[in-house]
Amino acid sequence: MKPAAAQKRIEGVLAPVITPFRRDLSPDADRFVKHCRWLMNSGCAGLAVFGTNSEANSMSVEEKLELLDALVKGGVAASALMPGTGHCALTDSVKMTREAVRMGCGGVLMLPPFYYKGVSDEGLFRNFSEVIERVGDERLRLYLYHIPPVSSVGISLELIERLLARYPGIVAGAKDSSGDWNNTRAMLERFKDRGFDVFPGSEVFLLDGLRAGGKGCITATGNINPGPISEVFKNFRSGESDKLQAGITATRKIVQKVPMIPALKAITAHFANNPAWRTVRPPLTELAPEQDRQVISELKAAGFSMLGL
Amino acid sequence: MKPAAAQKRIEGVLAPVITPFRRDLSPDADRFVKHCRWLMNSGCAGLAVFGTNSEANSMSVEEKLELLDALVKGGVAASALMPGTGHCALTDSVKMTREAVRMGCGGVLMLPPFYYKGVSDEGLFRNFSEVIERVGDERLRLYLYHIPPVSSVGISLELIERLLARYPGIVAGAKDSSGDWNNTRAMLERFKDRGFDVFPGSEVFLLDGLRAGGKGCITATGNINPGPISEVFKNFRSGESDKLQAGITATRKIVQKVPMIPALKAITAHFANNPAWRTVRPPLTELAPEQDRQVISELKAAGFSMLGL
Repeated sequence: MKPAAAQKRIEGVLAPVITPFRRDLSPDADRFVKHCRWLMNSGCAGLAVFGTNSEANSMSVEEKLELLDALVKGGVAASALMPGTGHCALTDSVKMTREAVRMGCGGVLMLPPFYYKGVSDEGLFRNFSEVIERVGDERLRLYLYHIPPVSSVGISLELIERLLARYPGIVAGAKDSSGDWNNTRAMLERFKDRGFDVFPGSEVFLLDGLRAGGKGCITATGNINPGPISEVFKNFRSGESDKLQAGITATRKIVQKVPMIPALKAITAHFANNPAWRTVRPPLTELAPEQDRQVISELKAAGFSMLGL
Repeated sequence: MKPAAAQKRIEGVLAPVITPFRRDLSPDADRFVKHCRWLMNSGCAGLAVFGTNSEANSMSVEEKLELLDALVKGGVAASALMPGTGHCALTDSVKMTREAVRMGCGGVLMLPPFYYKGVSDEGLFRNFSEVIERVGDERLRLYLYHIPPVSSVGISLELIERLLARYPGIVAGAKDSSGDWNNTRAMLERFKDRGFDVFPGSEVFLLDGLRAGGKGCITATGNINPGPISEVFKNFRSGESDKLQAGITATRKIVQKVPMIPALKAITAHFANNPAWRTVRPPLTELAPEQDRQVISELKAAGFSMLGL
């Protein structure tokens, strides 16, 4: 394996960046770079591009690599990027992870292969192990992506244990999008002081996570509310933290009343004054007009804005 | 759209062909072509390559296109092929469907995008519609692949109704791997005489399906037992049909006692006297040795063989 350079790990709030499509459903790299720069200027510590909220699995590997290339060429530091590189196909995961490492990405966020259900930890171990071995680069920082409500295939604590024992330093942490605080807490407790950085998949658990040793959060609404969410991260030891947390949780709850991905796009479209942002790839559909009006009007009533967008 | 030539549709027994991998997990095109030729010589009317049992989603689009090319160059008639071309990524589905049509495949078997769960029929309609429109070729024969136990995303009767109304002649049928005869019967009844060919996803339902207007079956065990299964298809109006059906159902039940995909590979490895056939890609794992011995010994005790393999 190639030796690792001294690397500072990503800590703080990461947005799983929504992907802009043109009317013909092709990815719009210029708009993507612009949105990513806005996120980094608005408080995000990093960008988990090509996540669930990015409609990453609705794009080919080639489309994603083109966007990643545009991002780095567009001036976003590769060290702040944690692209999703896990696919059903082993060879796709290897290809994309290898490219991400080559470009100097701070990490990769890796889904398990998610077509077959009820697979064994042994099969999942072999998948991640094959990717790590084939990439063969000590610079790889692999974050496991646990999101059973969508993938239907989860990452058990026992699987983490095996991977961490075999690949310490490379297996760097996890995003826990189970929505189950008990699972996040169990991850935090079991892998404490072992170089395993846990990021809850929602800012609702940000403060609780930080207090239990978490390193931030990777959250859908980081796309639209990065400033206030990052304030919780920055001030979590202050007397203001509970109040700040209550504020971001309230915003999250407004957005969650409607389907998340088209909601993030509708909100961005509204505040960027660019309706093209509403476009999603099938099988998703945009919000119904009444849902769109509702989420915007409730956010405005709560004083929400996207400054500088 | 390009005009359709006169096309005879595939009817009978199709195998969702298992994919041979080398020790390094790369696809073995020579072994694949050889197995496909054996299947066609042993009673299969067609080959549903790149299905669930093929570990298709564990391979990249490029790997599948190379195998498809090898198959046609290796003398298997493209008109007998019904490759799986449905992916999570719209652009992958378009690319692979376009190539399959260009090569003259008799049809394509298309999964819905399966990453996001609980998606709407409108979103799924848009997915299939985009693929059909982008491929833009009247020669396309699209078979919808309904396999909710694995994909978690199904094809409802209402979705079929919409697609069939919009794309008659192109939307050509379905494989129903729900394992629910009531659903298969409902498909058969509702779309009777509308050019919609229904294939149950298991030979257990072959005779019932044929009697209700089905066109054959696309079945995992078609990989190992194509002769006897095709005998049911050929003789379904004879007095022997129930007895023939009982025979193939009994064989299926032996195989089903252990995980299906590694079982098919273990059985093929045994009868081809080639242990390399046992190799699966992660996240699957090969059978445990005792499972392997059990399924082989039960099959042998029942007089099973793979003649000419």
